Amino acid sequence: MQREKIPVNICLKISYDGTGFAGFQMQAGSLLTVQGVLEKALGRLYKQPVRVAAAGRTDAGVHALEQVVSYRAPFDIPVDRLPRAINSLLPAEVVVWRAEEKPEEFHARFCAVKKIYSYTLDRGPFPQIMKRRYTWYYPYDLNIRAMAEGGNRLAGRHDFSAFRAGGSSTGSAVRNLYRVSIDDRAESCLLILKFEGDGFMYKMVRLMVGSLIRIGRGKLEPADLEEALAGRQPGAAGPAAPPQGLCLEKVEY
Amino acid sequence: MQREKIPVNICLKISYDGTGFAGFQMQAGSLLTVQGVLEKALGRLYKQPVRVAAAGRTDAGVHALEQVVSYRAPFDIPVDRLPRAINSLLPAEVVVWRAEEKPEEFHARFCAVKKIYSYTLDRGPFPQIMKRRYTWYYPYDLNIRAMAEGGNRLAGRHDFSAFRAGGSSTGSAVRNLYRVSIDDRAESCLLILKFEGDGFMYKMVRLMVGSLIRIGRGKLEPADLEEALAGRQPGAAGPAAPPQGLCLEKVEY
Repeated sequence: MQREKIPVNICLKISYDGTGFAGFQMQAGSLLTVQGVLEKALGRLYKQPVRVAAAGRTDAGVHALEQVVSYRAPFDIPVDRLPRAINSLLPAEVVVWRAEEKPEEFHARFCAVKKIYSYTLDRGPFPQIMKRRYTWYYPYDLNIRAMAEGGNRLAGRHDFSAFRAGGSSTGSAVRNLYRVSIDDRAESCLLILKFEGDGFMYKMVRLMVGSLIRIGRGKLEPADLEEALAGRQPGAAGPAAPPQGLCLEKVEY
Repeated sequence: MQREKIPVNICLKISYDGTGFAGFQMQAGSLLTVQGVLEKALGRLYKQPVRVAAAGRTDAGVHALEQVVSYRAPFDIPVDRLPRAINSLLPAEVVVWRAEEKPEEFHARFCAVKKIYSYTLDRGPFPQIMKRRYTWYYPYDLNIRAMAEGGNRLAGRHDFSAFRAGGSSTGSAVRNLYRVSIDDRAESCLLILKFEGDGFMYKMVRLMVGSLIRIGRGKLEPADLEEALAGRQPGAAGPAAPPQGLCLEKVEY
């Protein structure tokens, strides 16, 4: 009896500089997307179309240090050789740094239990030239303690409709935000906000950053966030911080 | 008696991402240079042509954290307001972060007594995505001790003709190289070479890096550098390391 040919389920860990991309997800038209260049590389490698699923569909201009994607490989290429083989077909802005074979039921998006995003502000007297693609230059005074207090009010299981971009898709906005932390690296003039949760809607992290910045500027009170959450009004929070400060740091399964 | 109008001698400290520039120095044709965008900004600010002199005329693709330029200002604008006024007219890749008034005899290039360049290698298992514009990705084994020994042989007052690019301009190649140091930051997978000297010729640092890498790979002995120096043969050293790892760190007066 011939052995049945079962496609291999491959999981890749990748990082990318999102500056030049219209986000992760492939779109109609000729926009450059991370998914697009990745599927093109995989298509060349396997000589047939390959579709990938990603843990977090990052927006235009958003970076990733550890994005996770999975796909069914049409045939077996040893995982220790895969990263270099795929990288040789990718532009320098996207790097595959690990490949693993996974059980058939693994799916990068549906099996993810936690994602960690960071948002970095450059608060120096002048923009740091080598950080400018990966930070939001924001040299204004901020009440960090109030921001941290605001972050604590956001953490928890909530309906985050207020942190949904106006006009974005419907569906439940209930998410578990496990933790919001703020790391004030005064010596390097960076302020790093981290958000750990089971899922984030389109622009949700950037809207939370925007609201926390307003708290830091004294234009909102931490308690106002509870009110915004309770109101569940899309577009009530923010404004959204610009994309270049945002980075998908890690996905847990 | 009317007070004589003496042009003010202004010194600027600037940083830039050299990736998109054809070097510091203005060139014939329409190539984008740091000098070009700076003089254009100053011309708009002062509403008349302004010529700048720079401490180090960095090559195409080379970065600067502390480049120093000087120019005669046609009229007085307070130095505490100058950086922001100029930055508002510059592309994001160039940042003026200090302005000082200097005595009439100050000249950014002729008065510089020491320049410090760094060269950064990314030695991680895969390229670090946010470092790739500012490092040379070089994941191969290196004998760091031998490289440091090679750096010690280069340091001193020498005729550096061997570290002059073939075909580059003539003139004395005698320079004082005060110090070569190597900082192995294993935890971040970076190797940083620093060169402190009174002056560097076109491609000289990158040729020294190339020779030190060959030593690190066991293809040259540290003593070979003394031989190369003694031979004074342009083009004997190197090959030149690529530009994106190089950065002008500091200029002293």
